Amino acid sequence: MIVGVIGGGQLARMMIPAAVNLDIDLRVLAEAEGSPAALAATAVGDYRDLDTVLDFASTVDVVTFDHEHVPQPILRELVSRGVAVRPGPDALRYAQDKLLMRERLGGLGLPMPVWARIESTADLVRFIDANGGRAVLKTATGGYDGKGVRVVSSAEEAQDWIERGQPLLAEELVDYSRELAQSVARRPSGQIAAWPVVESIQRDGVCAEVIAPAPSSAARAAGVASEIAHTIAEELGVTGVLAVELFETTDERILINELAMRPHNTGHWSIDGSTTSQFEQHLRAVLDLPLGATGCRDDWSVMVNILGGPAAGSLADRYPVAFAEQPTVKVHNYGKEPRPGRKIGHVTAGGDDLDEVAYLARAAAAHFGDSDLD
Amino acid sequence: MIVGVIGGGQLARMMIPAAVNLDIDLRVLAEAEGSPAALAATAVGDYRDLDTVLDFASTVDVVTFDHEHVPQPILRELVSRGVAVRPGPDALRYAQDKLLMRERLGGLGLPMPVWARIESTADLVRFIDANGGRAVLKTATGGYDGKGVRVVSSAEEAQDWIERGQPLLAEELVDYSRELAQSVARRPSGQIAAWPVVESIQRDGVCAEVIAPAPSSAARAAGVASEIAHTIAEELGVTGVLAVELFETTDERILINELAMRPHNTGHWSIDGSTTSQFEQHLRAVLDLPLGATGCRDDWSVMVNILGGPAAGSLADRYPVAFAEQPTVKVHNYGKEPRPGRKIGHVTAGGDDLDEVAYLARAAAAHFGDSDLD
Repeated sequence: MIVGVIGGGQLARMMIPAAVNLDIDLRVLAEAEGSPAALAATAVGDYRDLDTVLDFASTVDVVTFDHEHVPQPILRELVSRGVAVRPGPDALRYAQDKLLMRERLGGLGLPMPVWARIESTADLVRFIDANGGRAVLKTATGGYDGKGVRVVSSAEEAQDWIERGQPLLAEELVDYSRELAQSVARRPSGQIAAWPVVESIQRDGVCAEVIAPAPSSAARAAGVASEIAHTIAEELGVTGVLAVELFETTDERILINELAMRPHNTGHWSIDGSTTSQFEQHLRAVLDLPLGATGCRDDWSVMVNILGGPAAGSLADRYPVAFAEQPTVKVHNYGKEPRPGRKIGHVTAGGDDLDEVAYLARAAAAHFGDSDLD
Repeated sequence: MIVGVIGGGQLARMMIPAAVNLDIDLRVLAEAEGSPAALAATAVGDYRDLDTVLDFASTVDVVTFDHEHVPQPILRELVSRGVAVRPGPDALRYAQDKLLMRERLGGLGLPMPVWARIESTADLVRFIDANGGRAVLKTATGGYDGKGVRVVSSAEEAQDWIERGQPLLAEELVDYSRELAQSVARRPSGQIAAWPVVESIQRDGVCAEVIAPAPSSAARAAGVASEIAHTIAEELGVTGVLAVELFETTDERILINELAMRPHNTGHWSIDGSTTSQFEQHLRAVLDLPLGATGCRDDWSVMVNILGGPAAGSLADRYPVAFAEQPTVKVHNYGKEPRPGRKIGHVTAGGDDLDEVAYLARAAAAHFGDSDLD
């Protein structure tokens, strides 16, 4: 039972505890020595190099991912050679290319912001004019954590992107009251399990905090979110964890923002807050094992990212104070060097009073010197 | 922050997830290749060989243990060279030698079964005569899981042990209603944290099942158990996790049975059932970090050992059925070959109805083909 993970980031790292518990042989193809998932790294190399990936794949039973950046030709070559790739390239391309994603989900009649494919200045001018004088412009590929996204009110502001000659995605600037995220996992044989919908609080385009379940989510909103994620997982043939980032609009509609086909930052709360963590569930799913229960272990869980980290020293230097003051909070340290804006860890608190739980999680994260807030 | 563990068994293995979460560099000196803790094994060698242990110790910040078998002279040599050994030899000898333990705890006035040091046939005859015609006879060192223990009603039955010339420990056969276990952790700087007292159900001298907290434990019994463990941890200078196995007698006294100075089978429920697992707490304690909260995450947790395992095949072969039927139960597979009587994994269930929780845990364990029950 050998699972190979392409990419040695914190998502691969957080699969290690689940793999140890279930005695799954987890092997990671890391980009470099000393990656967050170094403990499980059995190979180091470039995931864009076919031979590197083929060699790695030959040592495992199933290939899955820490990120969505493995090029389609490599994924398709793996499949053609009989490698189990989960999620497979036919699904993964919708997480790799935002234009493809909008086209496909539109075809399924799923609720989305108004959007358009932009190939020229004229396209963008037309979209801005039709959408209140502004557009959220996105590169179709390669964006993450607020990168590859720009809010523009004129085509001039996007001239450099347009000149690249790659099609862009324009979206309306949604008038939303908050952001939600719905994660599910799907096995190749079809079983799907959904966690409760959560609220995700972003700061500068980066997930800062997650509240599980989403507070005062109307039963309707939760039902819609879950139904959307089920539909996407089934129709796109996703295997493993699928996270759907959503807008809840001021007029109470739910619109699809982004997709991720892997464990996702908005699901980190599940390590400590759900019966089955997204990392264990991802491993179960890609191995086509029955999925675990996805209920909440506490009335409320709040996860706060540790962004940036201490201005000097390491996260561990802060353990004496943080542990003494928040003995109930669970700390996850990704083993990354502190750097402004970088996700280097997270904390999760749980309990029955949301205000108290949120206070605990924020106070614990604050001990780790969020340099971005200084 | 490098913790070295001597011994590569399942206890070292279960420290790995906690170490990953907190980015503690865990290094294991394993007895052999392919140990349960192989993922963290940085050395393979004999813990009874001074040079092997010294070499290993030179690569870590603090030395701790998967078992209590490292000889005193080696431990003392480590200390004399300035290595942080936790627990240290002055404490550990009471977990290594049951006679020393009885003498020391007796000196502290702690409640124990009637016991005596046996050096001759005459000693044993005298003890048997004075204790209702029977004695629980134990080798002072080297016993575990029912090994090194014998119930005798005449000195002849123990002649082979007496002839070895090593002093033995005789204890009264306690009339107990059940067995309890109290775990605590203690930091070198003094802080102690106790988990709730649990009930431990033994089968053939081996822990089969643990219920946390111990059902209908009178507040008095829980208080006594916790006080006993606090006293032992402080007076013996234990660092790391200390587990005290206890008898609750039919006349409602609490008597000390055995000590373990490491994470213990009766504390495995804490991985899934307590805010801080005994493995995370052990790492915090040996690093002298503030201890985590020890409350129960569920009203009831029941842990059932997987003893022996499937008659054919591996534990993982049973995942499809076990996971499908018990999606809420957490499975821990130690990566050991099935063999009659061997502890190769455990399962933990949690919830608010003890009957239901116990049913779930036992049903889940049964999927893994407890060959000892067949």
